[in-house]
Amino acid sequence: MDDKLMLMIPGPTLVPETALLAMAQHPIGHRSGDFSKIMAEVIENLKWLHQTKNDVLILASSGTGAMEAGIINFLSPGDRILCGCNGKFGDRWAEVATAYGLQVEKITAEWGQALDTEKFRQHLEADQDKQIKAVIFTHSETSTGVLNDLETINGYVKAHGQALIIVDAVTSLGAVSIPVDELGLDIVASGSQKGYMIPPGLAFVAVGAKAWSAYEIAKLPRYYLDLGKYRKDAAKNTTPFTPPVNLFFALQATLRIMQGEGLENIFARHDRLKTATRTAIKALGLPLLGPDTVASPAVTAVAPPPEVEAEKLRAIMKKRFDIALAGGQDHLKGKIFRIGHLGFVCERDILSTIAALEVALIDLGYESFTPGAGLAAASRVLVKS
Amino acid sequence: MDDKLMLMIPGPTLVPETALLAMAQHPIGHRSGDFSKIMAEVIENLKWLHQTKNDVLILASSGTGAMEAGIINFLSPGDRILCGCNGKFGDRWAEVATAYGLQVEKITAEWGQALDTEKFRQHLEADQDKQIKAVIFTHSETSTGVLNDLETINGYVKAHGQALIIVDAVTSLGAVSIPVDELGLDIVASGSQKGYMIPPGLAFVAVGAKAWSAYEIAKLPRYYLDLGKYRKDAAKNTTPFTPPVNLFFALQATLRIMQGEGLENIFARHDRLKTATRTAIKALGLPLLGPDTVASPAVTAVAPPPEVEAEKLRAIMKKRFDIALAGGQDHLKGKIFRIGHLGFVCERDILSTIAALEVALIDLGYESFTPGAGLAAASRVLVKS
Repeated sequence: MDDKLMLMIPGPTLVPETALLAMAQHPIGHRSGDFSKIMAEVIENLKWLHQTKNDVLILASSGTGAMEAGIINFLSPGDRILCGCNGKFGDRWAEVATAYGLQVEKITAEWGQALDTEKFRQHLEADQDKQIKAVIFTHSETSTGVLNDLETINGYVKAHGQALIIVDAVTSLGAVSIPVDELGLDIVASGSQKGYMIPPGLAFVAVGAKAWSAYEIAKLPRYYLDLGKYRKDAAKNTTPFTPPVNLFFALQATLRIMQGEGLENIFARHDRLKTATRTAIKALGLPLLGPDTVASPAVTAVAPPPEVEAEKLRAIMKKRFDIALAGGQDHLKGKIFRIGHLGFVCERDILSTIAALEVALIDLGYESFTPGAGLAAASRVLVKS
Repeated sequence: MDDKLMLMIPGPTLVPETALLAMAQHPIGHRSGDFSKIMAEVIENLKWLHQTKNDVLILASSGTGAMEAGIINFLSPGDRILCGCNGKFGDRWAEVATAYGLQVEKITAEWGQALDTEKFRQHLEADQDKQIKAVIFTHSETSTGVLNDLETINGYVKAHGQALIIVDAVTSLGAVSIPVDELGLDIVASGSQKGYMIPPGLAFVAVGAKAWSAYEIAKLPRYYLDLGKYRKDAAKNTTPFTPPVNLFFALQATLRIMQGEGLENIFARHDRLKTATRTAIKALGLPLLGPDTVASPAVTAVAPPPEVEAEKLRAIMKKRFDIALAGGQDHLKGKIFRIGHLGFVCERDILSTIAALEVALIDLGYESFTPGAGLAAASRVLVKS
């Protein structure tokens, strides 16, 4: 049907109508007092969400722009960095760093597995003369549904003492607790079309004091992504370049909704939705791409057996039920499908998705489950929690 | 009053409700066939608006991001460029180029005056060994309301034969005819919150064949702003990074509106609104910042006498009439005010603005005009044209 799409992909995510209607307002001047008031409120609430007193800067870009800013503002050509690569996005940050002439050492893991924190420890401990300037990795790998161990890797970076930690939190921010100040995270990047519950077009970079010291000596060229400019103007509740004012209207609305729900409740909801989804998928006899122990609260990747063609399944889900699921990326294209459950997602959405999935699977001739088993499993998780 | 704002600034500009409502739709997946269909239509219509068969690439950024992309994709460190500087934005492109280690020669003019095209001729003719790699300037200087002579400067660049022409058309695209292919313009950048009639958040770069050849050897680092990636993906009606899908909905709507009006009519309307505005301002005895011969069809800058404080006047216009006018930037702050008349602006808007301006001027104690004189002058222009 038209206008009936249910977006169960890991971004863009579902958007509350309050935010959509806020966005439909006539724009206002970005150099006006009215805009500054919105920006002041938004900045305060972004700091609340990031659990930080540091700067949280707002860019008009995708999450990639924010990550690029998080890298190029704090490093110089030839700097040595460690980059965790266990999915499409980890690979991308290695590409960004390489494009800017950094010396990149990759710590890799198979797509679907978490990064081995021990490898970070070894590399960082071996670096006696403190040549590693930054450690970059993706917290929640959107391409695989794996949550890397931020706390442990951060501990090793802190023990190293010199390197900055640069975290891609694009699908984890707002889905799982990231206590930026408590962990002492230097740079944390994220994007609006994920846990923030608004459409794409804004991106965020939290920057701590140690990163700002590095900024002073960093030599990579930048202008549009120069975070110093954003910091200077944010202090006056304005932006160096014309901001997407209508997306700010939407963000103001969703941050208020998030404050109403409360951080603990938001994170508990994501955890519950993740567990319900994974439990249901298992009850349907479908293999999950990664293990439960490192499962992202944002997205679940399913690797169906050969008789269930992922792309055909997605087509049925879309055509018959107006539910959009994500496919695999790069070498996982056609081999997995992904269910997004971050942002403006409630228990009903998970139940609908699992129920529809059961029908679609039967439709495809897959009969390795008792009809209703997925739904029953999800329901048990929801009733208990 | 609340919700009554009339945005007569040179961006963000007024947005048709069709576009606002389009933007308020639930987002869709950016890797879907539905999004590709929108993108295909949008690209085709952007080419129509640019009067080109070249690529017109779409970025999630402000106009500055598009201009930076227009510079860094086609040049290498140390390259010599000419940069026209006669306002805030011309100065900005010199700053961008300097940030990336280019060798910048500025051709300056006073703010409010047009760039002297002869200086471009002299510099380009003197460059016998073709070391000048690019000529960059702002077509319509938003900060002063001056339209630089694109055609003449382009002629000298073409006579030089080697240099690329990189045009900031942020407030001119959609307000005045820019026949990209006929003039052979290499790179033309613009932003969504101007003639495109949608909110800020998208930016555009038209790139011609000669520029793509330069891209092959250009060595400045880039990733998020790497136009090669956008070109490759645009060929498949997709984008390398998550696009602001809701702004695409709005753009699809306004490009259809623009097609309905027709290019000639759009440009004639802007010319008429410009002339009506300037004629009215003169009838009120207020000095214009720049001469009529180089007046931008997008924005008119007024330099009132000392007894009319520009900021007080803007405050009255805002408070009493809910009309937002722009102030001066940098050293012109407090010395001028600017009336935007680009995009979704009709004759009624100009009449309202002039009528309100008359009251605000009288309110401020300025009595150098016969009440009604501004409105009468504007009306005469509109009746005649």
